[in-house]
Amino acid sequence: MTHLDLAAPVEELAKALVDIPSVSGNEDRIADAVEAALAPLAHLEVTRLGNAIVARTHLGRAERVVIAGHLDTVPIKGNVPGSWDGDGFLVGRGSVDMKAGVAVQLSLAAALDAPTRDITWVFYDQEEVEADRNGLGRVARERPDLVEGDFAVLCEPTSGVIEGGCNGTMRAEVRIPGRAAHSARAWKGLNAIHRAAPLLTTLAAYAAETITVDGLDYREGVNAVRIAGGIAGNVIPDECVVTINYRFAPCWSLEEAQQRLEALVASAGLDGYHLVYTDLSGAARPGLDAPLAASFAASVAATGVEEPRAKQGWTDVARFGELGIPAVNYGPGDPELAHADDERCPVEDIRHCRAGLEAWLTS
Amino acid sequence: MTHLDLAAPVEELAKALVDIPSVSGNEDRIADAVEAALAPLAHLEVTRLGNAIVARTHLGRAERVVIAGHLDTVPIKGNVPGSWDGDGFLVGRGSVDMKAGVAVQLSLAAALDAPTRDITWVFYDQEEVEADRNGLGRVARERPDLVEGDFAVLCEPTSGVIEGGCNGTMRAEVRIPGRAAHSARAWKGLNAIHRAAPLLTTLAAYAAETITVDGLDYREGVNAVRIAGGIAGNVIPDECVVTINYRFAPCWSLEEAQQRLEALVASAGLDGYHLVYTDLSGAARPGLDAPLAASFAASVAATGVEEPRAKQGWTDVARFGELGIPAVNYGPGDPELAHADDERCPVEDIRHCRAGLEAWLTS
Repeated sequence: MTHLDLAAPVEELAKALVDIPSVSGNEDRIADAVEAALAPLAHLEVTRLGNAIVARTHLGRAERVVIAGHLDTVPIKGNVPGSWDGDGFLVGRGSVDMKAGVAVQLSLAAALDAPTRDITWVFYDQEEVEADRNGLGRVARERPDLVEGDFAVLCEPTSGVIEGGCNGTMRAEVRIPGRAAHSARAWKGLNAIHRAAPLLTTLAAYAAETITVDGLDYREGVNAVRIAGGIAGNVIPDECVVTINYRFAPCWSLEEAQQRLEALVASAGLDGYHLVYTDLSGAARPGLDAPLAASFAASVAATGVEEPRAKQGWTDVARFGELGIPAVNYGPGDPELAHADDERCPVEDIRHCRAGLEAWLTS
Repeated sequence: MTHLDLAAPVEELAKALVDIPSVSGNEDRIADAVEAALAPLAHLEVTRLGNAIVARTHLGRAERVVIAGHLDTVPIKGNVPGSWDGDGFLVGRGSVDMKAGVAVQLSLAAALDAPTRDITWVFYDQEEVEADRNGLGRVARERPDLVEGDFAVLCEPTSGVIEGGCNGTMRAEVRIPGRAAHSARAWKGLNAIHRAAPLLTTLAAYAAETITVDGLDYREGVNAVRIAGGIAGNVIPDECVVTINYRFAPCWSLEEAQQRLEALVASAGLDGYHLVYTDLSGAARPGLDAPLAASFAASVAATGVEEPRAKQGWTDVARFGELGIPAVNYGPGDPELAHADDERCPVEDIRHCRAGLEAWLTS
């Protein structure tokens, strides 16, 4: 069992976490280490559900904040254990996404034995894989009481800026039928790939909107992310399937966003297609109008960080949104480097985020 | 070893051939049977090259006719051994493509010990698979003397009508590049699938020509037969590949046809694509102006059959075209039923084709 020293400098703790391989589905070892490190702390009630660990204060405060992070990473590319480069970066898989954020959580979980709000620290598994394996979702289903709160912070990488809410994302397959025939007698068939032309033209011409929600700008996107058609080199294709990914702003409910996507597809004027959803993940409003969010934003602004901005990608803040809990993203590291082969996180970011959260939770 | 009775009624011989499974690459047994049946015939010189068998008369005639057929079939679908239905059809895999034609060849090879032209009977393997495995091609490469002649007849199914020449066929992959990005930040990428839109629009709008060559009408066709693009559901596709099949009339050389296809693709106005040919098979002119062809056409017309027409599909007549030998298709069975699960050939067709060839070869 790896011993985690929660009293160490937060960047050392981050490196210790990077050094424990924890690719999705293989979080036993890191979960054991996190549980063992938290269990002795008298101010925390620690509960484990599979490889998710929840540690809660019970100080009778008026408000409760949920601060969450995932323990797993995408596959390792020769970058575990982690290392330091000369320019003040922690290098390695998970340094950005999101063991630096988990280190901030663990460091503060140990240090803050009398925070001004009750805190629920959540560490969970399997975020980087299919949504139905997600550890936060599992906890919310099996023990919803464990994730109750008035506000949530997800320590996903944001370069230390508060990123509010998130765009939603959905995928739909547009199945365009044709009629097979030998390509030497093409006039007997109906070419499904040719029939897809107006849809691609519509998608290529579509100018995605930027929509302001609660003061933050969400940039939408509608993209074909896959296309497949054709049976053999001498057969007129009897089907062409275009998979469309719609990233939509949190002003739209899932149903409204579906209507928007369906209207766009319909505008292409295809005849007789089928539209089948393969993924439907709602957006989350930024929640910055919640009083706790405002106080958090003020605390972070006091550290000299720029104004909150919109989160463009989909994150687990949407799960808190579904639970009715306003949530923001706030964590160290450049999200552009998440999953990158050269994943690396500035040590300064890690320290800064710890300081920002600590200032708020003790004010 | 299956014994083939070449003196049996030609439809019985066709059924005996259907009863021997001979999916491409597994022609040993049928080739053994064909060789054994021809070897005792004193008027034929029999040569075997792998599973191809060539049987030639050497009567010192002024002209030599090559009459060819392949021994293999596409995979069996519970339709071997063959059967008779009540309506005068031989039913089973290969009944159309092309064991009825092979039966006509074998029956006449045995019967015609003094034809008016010298005859080279060619039975070959692996026609239904990749071109480089084709047995006729192998014989032409290894023993070109074995397929020399003034005119060739390929007994592929034509419902007993002479079908002249064949369209050529080529396939080209048009590779359209994009730039990958996370689909939550689509504006950082370049969507290769969207970029394919003008090409599909061009293909969908293209009206293929019908071109008259030596009096026969060849119908061209330009079709996307495959399209593929996309890496993952959350990534802007960095490439889209459209495979185009161009069936072209025999007025065009391979080079001219390539230029026509390339000009069509260029007219779509794509920027920075790559075009890669994956198949290039030349067309064959009908050759009906050759004197032997004219006499053959006259003999067949005398049996009450309709006028020669163009062969739309690509067949091995193009291989004879490459060797400078005019060639036509002429055989029993409806080519639309080739490879069909309910493949079946009218007994009347088999008898009729035998009679048409016999009349010509003895006149």
